[in-house]
Amino acid sequence: METSQGEYFVVKAKDNGVQVIGLTRGLDTKFHHTEKLDKGEVMIAQFTDHTSAVKIRGKAIVFTKYGVIDTEE
Amino acid sequence: METSQGEYFVVKAKDNGVQVIGLTRGLDTKFHHTEKLDKGEVMIAQFTDHTSAVKIRGKAIVFTKYGVIDTEE
Amino acid sequence: METSQGEYFVVKAKDNGVQVIGLTRGLDTKFHHTEKLDKGEVMIAQFTDHTSAVKIRGKAIVFTKYGVIDTEE
Amino acid sequence: METSQGEYFVVKAKDNGVQVIGLTRGLDTKFHHTEKLDKGEVMIAQFTDHTSAVKIRGKAIVFTKYGVIDTEE
Amino acid sequence: METSQGEYFVVKAKDNGVQVIGLTRGLDTKFHHTEKLDKGEVMIAQFTDHTSAVKIRGKAIVFTKYGVIDTEE
Amino acid sequence: METSQGEYFVVKAKDNGVQVIGLTRGLDTKFHHTEKLDKGEVMIAQFTDHTSAVKIRGKAIVFTKYGVIDTEE
Amino acid sequence: METSQGEYFVVKAKDNGVQVIGLTRGLDTKFHHTEKLDKGEVMIAQFTDHTSAVKIRGKAIVFTKYGVIDTEE
Amino acid sequence: METSQGEYFVVKAKDNGVQVIGLTRGLDTKFHHTEKLDKGEVMIAQFTDHTSAVKIRGKAIVFTKYGVIDTEE
Amino acid sequence: METSQGEYFVVKAKDNGVQVIGLTRGLDTKFHHTEKLDKGEVMIAQFTDHTSAVKIRGKAIVFTKYGVIDTEE
Amino acid sequence: METSQGEYFVVKAKDNGVQVIGLTRGLDTKFHHTEKLDKGEVMIAQFTDHTSAVKIRGKAIVFTKYGVIDTEE
Amino acid sequence: METSQGEYFVVKAKDNGVQVIGLTRGLDTKFHHTEKLDKGEVMIAQFTDHTSAVKIRGKAIVFTKYGVIDTEE
Amino acid sequence: METSQGEYFVVKAKDNGVQVIGLTRGLDTKFHHTEKLDKGEVMIAQFTDHTSAVKIRGKAIVFTKYGVIDTEE
Repeated sequence: METSQGEYFVVKAKDNGVQVIGLTRGLDTKFHHTEKLDKGEVMIAQFTDHTSAVKIRGKAIVFTKYGVIDTEE
Repeated sequence: METSQGEYFVVKAKDNGVQVIGLTRGLDTKFHHTEKLDKGEVMIAQFTDHTSAVKIRGKAIVFTKYGVIDTEE
Repeated sequence: METSQGEYFVVKAKDNGVQVIGLTRGLDTKFHHTEKLDKGEVMIAQFTDHTSAVKIRGKAIVFTKYGVIDTEE
Repeated sequence: METSQGEYFVVKAKDNGVQVIGLTRGLDTKFHHTEKLDKGEVMIAQFTDHTSAVKIRGKAIVFTKYGVIDTEE
Repeated sequence: METSQGEYFVVKAKDNGVQVIGLTRGLDTKFHHTEKLDKGEVMIAQFTDHTSAVKIRGKAIVFTKYGVIDTEE
Repeated sequence: METSQGEYFVVKAKDNGVQVIGLTRGLDTKFHHTEKLDKGEVMIAQFTDHTSAVKIRGKAIVFTKYGVIDTEE
Repeated sequence: METSQGEYFVVKAKDNGVQVIGLTRGLDTKFHHTEKLDKGEVMIAQFTDHTSAVKIRGKAIVFTKYGVIDTEE
Repeated sequence: METSQGEYFVVKAKDNGVQVIGLTRGLDTKFHHTEKLDKGEVMIAQFTDHTSAVKIRGKAIVFTKYGVIDTEE
Repeated sequence: METSQGEYFVVKAKDNGVQVIGLTRGLDTKFHHTEKLDKGEVMIAQFTDHTSAVKIRGKAIVFTKYGVIDTEE
Repeated sequence: METSQGEYFVVKAKDNGVQVIGLTRGLDTKFHHTEKLDKGEVMIAQFTDHTSAVKIRGKAIVFTKYGVIDTEE
Repeated sequence: METSQGEYFVVKAKDNGVQVIGLTRGLDTKFHHTEKLDKGEVMIAQFTDHTSAVKIRGKAIVFTKYGVIDTEE
Repeated sequence: METSQGEYFVVKAKDNGVQVIGLTRGLDTKFHHTEKLDKGEVMIAQFTDHTSAVKIRGKAIVFTKYGVIDTEE
């Protein structure tokens, strides 16, 4: 059953070309989607039945339950 | 089962033409709806069985459980 | 199963003609109801099986779990 | 299943003729009941399987989990 | 299933003739019981499968989870 | 199913002849039991499948989750 | 199903002859057991499937979730 | 089903001959076990499917969720 | 079903020969196991489907959710 | 069903030869495993379907939800 | 059933070539995926049905519920 | 059912050759996997259906819900 109540995190791009890369859940762990964000764009995303990990590339601020993480600091 | 209890977030447009773009849950991650907000308009939206990520473009304030995020600061 | 326990939010109109616009849950995201509020009127509304997003137009104060949002400030 | 545990809110009329208007849950959103309150009367009401939104008209104080809202201030 | 765990509220009459009026849950919203309280009498009442709203008339103090409401102030 | 985990409240009589009157749950709301307390007697009572409201008459102190209510003050 | 997890309260007798009287749950509310406590004796008791109310007579201290109640003060 | 997760309380004997008396749950309330404690002995006991009340006789300290009760003070 | 999530308590022996005596759950309450601890030994034990009470004899410190109890003080 | 979510505790050896002895759950309470720890070694262990009590012998620090217990102090 | 609600942790690379190595859940514990992170890249990852342990190699900051861990300090 | 939501702990190696040794859950308690960590490496691991205890050997810092434990202090 798909659930709309999974954990979410937020990414805010500090520069153009930030990548939010979804990695597949399950036996294989591979890239299944890359979302590009330009400067100032904000993405709010949940873990899903298909995505159990996310990799963020580029200058961005990542908001998680463990705090706010700046990729540049 | 659809649930009316999913997490929600709030977007307030600081300028005309703010876009709140829903990305599909599931195997494919693609745009399925773009809602445009004019200056001062507020959108309150939940994650659903069809939307597991949202991208916000334009000058806006985003209210989430990790705090208030200004796309311009 | 319909549930009477969904999240709710509150809108208070600061002027006549405030619109509280319900957007449909599900595959299509479209307007399904617009409630108009005159100055001083208060609306308390839940997310439901049919409404997963709401757009507020006009001068109003929106009360949510992330705080109180004034559409004019 | 009807539940006696839905969220409730409280309305206190500051003047005669305050209206507490129930809007239907479900596909159609329309008025299904209007309760009139005279000055000093208090109404405690739950969301139900039939009511997912309520509109308050007239001089009143509304007590919700987001705080106390005065329709006149 | 009837549950003995619904929310409750308390009404204390400050004068004779205070009315605690139960409104029916369900499709029709109508009066189904009026309990009269004389000065100093206290009523503790739950929402039930039959009562989803209550109206209080007369000089009374109402105790709810949102605070203590005096019908006269 | 009867449950031993319903909410309870406490009444302490400040004078002889305090009445703790149980009102029936369900379609009819009527008196089903009156317990009399003499000065200093304490009654601890739960809501049950048969009692959804209680009325207290006479000089007493009522202990509820909303605070301590003195019928005389 | 009997449950060992019901709410409990505590009575400490300040004098001989304190009575802890159990009242029956269900359609009839009547005495079903009276436990006598002598000075200094402590009784810890749960609500059960058979007891939904308790009456305490005599000089005692009653410990409940709403605080400590002295029958003499 | 027996559960190992019932509430527990603790009794510490301040003198020889303290009695911890279990009273039966169910229709009859009678003594079913008396445990004797000598000075300094500590007993940790749960409510069970068979014990819904306990009576403590003698000089002891009783630890409950409502605080620490000394039978002598 | 056996559960590994029952409440636990801790006993630390202050002297040789401390006894941690398990009493049976169920209709009969009798000793079913005595564990002896020597000075400095620590025992961490859960309530189980077979043990609903424990008696501690000898010089020890008992750690429970109501605090730390020294058998000698 | 085995569960990976049982309570756990931690033992840190302050000297060679510390013993962490598992006692069986169920009708018989007997030793079923002894783990030896040398100085500085740390063991993190859960209660399981087979272990409902643990005895620690030797110079060690035991970390539990009731605090940190030093076997030597 | 796959769940999108597992615990997650965050790794931020302080240098190129940081490795986040997933170890398999189940009878065998072996490497099943290695994700490489370059300086400034952030990875947010959940435990899954296939990954019950993760090993981080290289200069990185690891964000967990127990705090922030710097591999170099 | 395997669950991705078991408790986890974190080990950070302060020196080469730290060992994180998994002990089997169930009737037999024996070593089933040893993971070696070099200086600065961090391991985040859950209890699983196969691992109910873990032993850490060598100079390391262990992060648990009871605090941070340094194997050398």
